[in-house]
Amino acid sequence: MSVPFKNKTVLKILDYYKNLWTLSYTSAIAHWDLETYMPAKGAGARGEALGRLSVIRQKMFLDPGFVALIHKAGREKNLTDQERGVTRNLLRALRVYEKLPSEFIENFERLTNTATVVWRSARDGNDYKLFEPYLTKIFDMNRKAAEYLGYKDSPYDALLDQFEEDLTNREVSEFFGEIKDPLKNLLDQIMRSEKHNNSQKLEKMAYKIEKLKAVNQKILSLFWADFGRFRLDVSSHPFTTSFSGNDTRITTWYHKKDFGRSVLATVHEFGHALYDLQSGPSLEMTPIRSESLVIHESQSRFWENFVGRSESFIKYFKKDFESAVGQKLSTQDIYSYFNNVSPGPLRVEADEVTYHFHIMLRFEIEKDLIEGKIKVKDVRDVWNSKMKEYLGIAPRNDSEGVLQDIHWSGGMVGYFPTYSLGTFLGAQWEEVIKNEKLIINNYDGIKMWLKDHIHKYGSTYTLPELLKKNKMKFDLKVNLNYLQKKYGKIYGFKA
Amino acid sequence: MSVPFKNKTVLKILDYYKNLWTLSYTSAIAHWDLETYMPAKGAGARGEALGRLSVIRQKMFLDPGFVALIHKAGREKNLTDQERGVTRNLLRALRVYEKLPSEFIENFERLTNTATVVWRSARDGNDYKLFEPYLTKIFDMNRKAAEYLGYKDSPYDALLDQFEEDLTNREVSEFFGEIKDPLKNLLDQIMRSEKHNNSQKLEKMAYKIEKLKAVNQKILSLFWADFGRFRLDVSSHPFTTSFSGNDTRITTWYHKKDFGRSVLATVHEFGHALYDLQSGPSLEMTPIRSESLVIHESQSRFWENFVGRSESFIKYFKKDFESAVGQKLSTQDIYSYFNNVSPGPLRVEADEVTYHFHIMLRFEIEKDLIEGKIKVKDVRDVWNSKMKEYLGIAPRNDSEGVLQDIHWSGGMVGYFPTYSLGTFLGAQWEEVIKNEKLIINNYDGIKMWLKDHIHKYGSTYTLPELLKKNKMKFDLKVNLNYLQKKYGKIYGFKA
Repeated sequence: MSVPFKNKTVLKILDYYKNLWTLSYTSAIAHWDLETYMPAKGAGARGEALGRLSVIRQKMFLDPGFVALIHKAGREKNLTDQERGVTRNLLRALRVYEKLPSEFIENFERLTNTATVVWRSARDGNDYKLFEPYLTKIFDMNRKAAEYLGYKDSPYDALLDQFEEDLTNREVSEFFGEIKDPLKNLLDQIMRSEKHNNSQKLEKMAYKIEKLKAVNQKILSLFWADFGRFRLDVSSHPFTTSFSGNDTRITTWYHKKDFGRSVLATVHEFGHALYDLQSGPSLEMTPIRSESLVIHESQSRFWENFVGRSESFIKYFKKDFESAVGQKLSTQDIYSYFNNVSPGPLRVEADEVTYHFHIMLRFEIEKDLIEGKIKVKDVRDVWNSKMKEYLGIAPRNDSEGVLQDIHWSGGMVGYFPTYSLGTFLGAQWEEVIKNEKLIINNYDGIKMWLKDHIHKYGSTYTLPELLKKNKMKFDLKVNLNYLQKKYGKIYGFKA
Repeated sequence: MSVPFKNKTVLKILDYYKNLWTLSYTSAIAHWDLETYMPAKGAGARGEALGRLSVIRQKMFLDPGFVALIHKAGREKNLTDQERGVTRNLLRALRVYEKLPSEFIENFERLTNTATVVWRSARDGNDYKLFEPYLTKIFDMNRKAAEYLGYKDSPYDALLDQFEEDLTNREVSEFFGEIKDPLKNLLDQIMRSEKHNNSQKLEKMAYKIEKLKAVNQKILSLFWADFGRFRLDVSSHPFTTSFSGNDTRITTWYHKKDFGRSVLATVHEFGHALYDLQSGPSLEMTPIRSESLVIHESQSRFWENFVGRSESFIKYFKKDFESAVGQKLSTQDIYSYFNNVSPGPLRVEADEVTYHFHIMLRFEIEKDLIEGKIKVKDVRDVWNSKMKEYLGIAPRNDSEGVLQDIHWSGGMVGYFPTYSLGTFLGAQWEEVIKNEKLIINNYDGIKMWLKDHIHKYGSTYTLPELLKKNKMKFDLKVNLNYLQKKYGKIYGFKA
């Protein structure tokens, strides 16, 4: 890469930006700690501080000198790709900050901090009604945010754009429209097949947590040798956070049973982390380290689905899995277990096929709520009836139904679709990598490829730009074909 | 307590102050993480962020509207004690911020971040010369800071005041002048006694780290039941940090041998933590939660010396200690071991008697450096010759000599004396508590007393004010008498 930053205006921007970076950086540490080691009663002060930090950051961002520089950069010619990326990203953030009043941001932060606490009690007590008033406020504020931010067709567009630049309701609706029937057909074929299945046995096997912790560490050591830049912790829900390319962290979870859930979460989060670990060092402390949620999810899903669920991976760690459960297992047993398709109420436990129905359901509900077509008081009923329709199951209670996800309590509306889109894109990376004659257990080769074609750019490019640069187009058929072929083979029917 | 804050100016101050609190709070989290869980290579970005955070905080503090409010509060009459405390504390911080240029603060932060890294390599390689140029710069900048800050008698006064309000070179010199001979005599008596001693045996005993971790947790559970507000971690040097009264954390260390060192560090840090855990809830997010280092150290030393080294404590945990070392131990053995007096090169391993010679040596060196009486290039020689003079020993290398402490590399000059002063004050609390007929293993009674007489005030009062409120005066004879009596008994000579 040639010198990424040389334009004087951009250099001034990046200099000032380091202060904004400082606040995001410390906020990320505080968030990580909140999820990993914070004593429970520290939550009150933590919420207060994080709320204030957002407002301090907004004020600092809206410094008139800085805003003028951003606008000036937007008019500059002959910028490098990285400089254009910085300018694009900051103009986008500026639009949000200028449009959302600071009291709105502060109130929203406060609301979601409280709502997350209430959501936890509601979930633990299976009591949707307890959470309902907060969910009502959250959707009210999201609608208001959409009005502040502006949109062309649907207020939901404004919310989607917050998580994936320029993503629209129309695109997402078309996407789900096109995958719905093929996936439904595939699921029906699987459910009707004779081989359907059996791997419940391994799911229910108890394991020793300390042993599985060591297995997860071993897996990560194989993928990424340098623990001077990377670490693994435990949290109530797995996540990745990257303070810098030299300090990137993931978490996983342990449930006493179902070791695959912990292992695949670890591999999934590693996929996220790798993007940050391999992002260009010259992008450190700039606004373009890694942003697009769809690209991010395409990385995590690539590792989870194509590496973690692969026969070669399973074979390599077979002895370790055996040791964690204290029983003999065959590679074939574990492979079936890691690739078992079975409708269930929980998104985070869903397989590669049923997963997208979980997302579709959430997408339809949040879009209809934002567009005023349904009301929060009806969400539980809508949820349960869609679950019946798509997967043929009924959640036994709210905690495995409408209250299972943290996202809405955290204020995130418009986030879910990136999960499915990213998963589909992940399959496209696998296809390209396969065409490069890289085999799936050549981890070093794969990492190098991902670095050179995706990671090193951070978010220099938008998702469409990155695809173009790699001579690709988003093509949902790739994942559909992959699923049809793979599960046809597993369940013994033809694609 | 009646309403602590009602003055309108102070209320406005406290409202704005919450933003400053936010930055200190997040900075404290980042520091804690740096010492506990941060992957090593994260240090670069961490240093950059912490440096910038200090500058952002300084700028925010120096907001003209806020400064005007502080000055206004300084002229108000009829303030409550807490309001006076807030005003006093902020006027003090303001003096520092107004006098030290922001580039100075930033450069100092950068210097000390690098110096700490260099110090670690120098210490690990026993190479004082490697560290010398950094130490030279650090003392140069501290001298410069003293000039910026101003002082009456010695530039060292300005540095002492940063750590303990109004503490002067004259007071510290008098203090060490008065304790030097009595402690020297006591040490001579001990060294000449027949019973001197033997507890080297227990020091060198190996222990199982996981078991000792459980013992430390058990000790803390006895002292403080609520782990929803409190936690224990491991770091390379024990410390306490308090993000809020509801999120206060300590660390301890494990060295494979010498279990007392880990246990007493845990008890010591608990003493610090308790001050923060019991500070008045109405003081949360204000500048007067807990500040005075001497008061803080008096709390940690009180718990370490009077609880942790007591026979009743040892007896209570005897079985746990036995289990950690995997051997039978007598209460008397452990008591001798916890209360063994023996000159050694390391401050952090020093007993109650020799400890103060370690501090005296550092005090004399840093004072002479600041006053220009000695040069950094001579520090190692001065260190070694004073060590010989006071304790009759010669460090085998720099890592157990002049390079043993982190303080100077972190820029802290004028800090050490608070350790000895705090220890002496700790003995005074014990005397008062004993006069209240509280026995030393009545932990709840002691905690209540400490809360009502010290902790709940946070740093509403200066050290002299707090002593006055408790009808006390600083009296170094209390600790001298205690040491004479206790060690006379242990080593079999008369006080």
